[in-house]
Amino acid sequence: MNVYGESISRLIEEFSKLPGIGGKSAQRLAFYIINQKVERAEALAAAILNARRGVRYCSICLTLTDSEPCAVCADYKRDPRQIMIVEDPRDMAAYERTNGFKGLYHVLHGAISPMNGIGPNELKIRELLTRLKESPADEIILATNPNVEGEATAMYISRLLKPLGVKVTRIAHGVPVGGDLEFVDEMTLSRALEGRREM
Amino acid sequence: MNVYGESISRLIEEFSKLPGIGGKSAQRLAFYIINQKVERAEALAAAILNARRGVRYCSICLTLTDSEPCAVCADYKRDPRQIMIVEDPRDMAAYERTNGFKGLYHVLHGAISPMNGIGPNELKIRELLTRLKESPADEIILATNPNVEGEATAMYISRLLKPLGVKVTRIAHGVPVGGDLEFVDEMTLSRALEGRREM
Repeated sequence: MNVYGESISRLIEEFSKLPGIGGKSAQRLAFYIINQKVERAEALAAAILNARRGVRYCSICLTLTDSEPCAVCADYKRDPRQIMIVEDPRDMAAYERTNGFKGLYHVLHGAISPMNGIGPNELKIRELLTRLKESPADEIILATNPNVEGEATAMYISRLLKPLGVKVTRIAHGVPVGGDLEFVDEMTLSRALEGRREM
Repeated sequence: MNVYGESISRLIEEFSKLPGIGGKSAQRLAFYIINQKVERAEALAAAILNARRGVRYCSICLTLTDSEPCAVCADYKRDPRQIMIVEDPRDMAAYERTNGFKGLYHVLHGAISPMNGIGPNELKIRELLTRLKESPADEIILATNPNVEGEATAMYISRLLKPLGVKVTRIAHGVPVGGDLEFVDEMTLSRALEGRREM
């Protein structure tokens, strides 16, 4: 028997589809929502819809944003001739939190991973080449994750850009090898940026 | 600087208000939503609104439900003279999953907890007395949690009901002491029901 009734069961089901939310957590979240004021539930629902409907890729750096271009690309004080390549918008946000980088970004939306069937064509590498053709850069900083996929991606892009005569650097291995860039502390991220070397 | 833009930041903020969702999890959930089809985000938002707006207390057992009365109270095959007292709708759902109880429920929505300022008046005990006056029961089974608050609540209700001449039982201590009823396996819950004794 469906003890909870249709609408609660549906909510539990929807929550349990989210990553990292098991059955018990979904149940707890659903009952939390039900016990909140209606306005709180409406705020969450609206946030979900606005984020999903309003967010698009920045036409310049391809990060996820609701403004066009994104706040970083729109900032005229930043140096457009220095471009940091990251795998994910969250990595970009992590570097923004260091306040130590004044160039622009390019978001690949992934890393080369033959095991998962992700090749260079699945990443925003073609867009990077087009971008560099239209507005050449002095330096490309490869800030992909310090794991196998990230290193392979950095290597691939480095080989692709070298013939174009652009300076290609890799963030230093101050970032812990095998880790995920998103979870590294600001200090380590800053050190890694300072210690970057030409590839 | 707000790297993500207003709508993503808002969604991350809303997610991080949920219980058990930290900053990193909220970020991961937000990006998961953004990368899903619009329909998926709409389904989640609708489920939240429907659950919050459509759910009310069952007029008989006071569980949370979107039908009136709830599916259990509406089931004419169940024995209305046997009432199980639980703290929470989730505990009721846990007992429903055992398929071993054919009576009805009464949901207290909490347990007596002086430390948290919750006394008998904060629970649905007055409603229980009114209910028993209108439709007397043969047996009241106290299935509050097997922890300090649950035991205190069971004791309180037992003393309240004994003078009315109703048989009051407590589920057996097959349920692990100090635990949370919601997380007990079906077999243990069934054993606890079978081994109930008069208080």
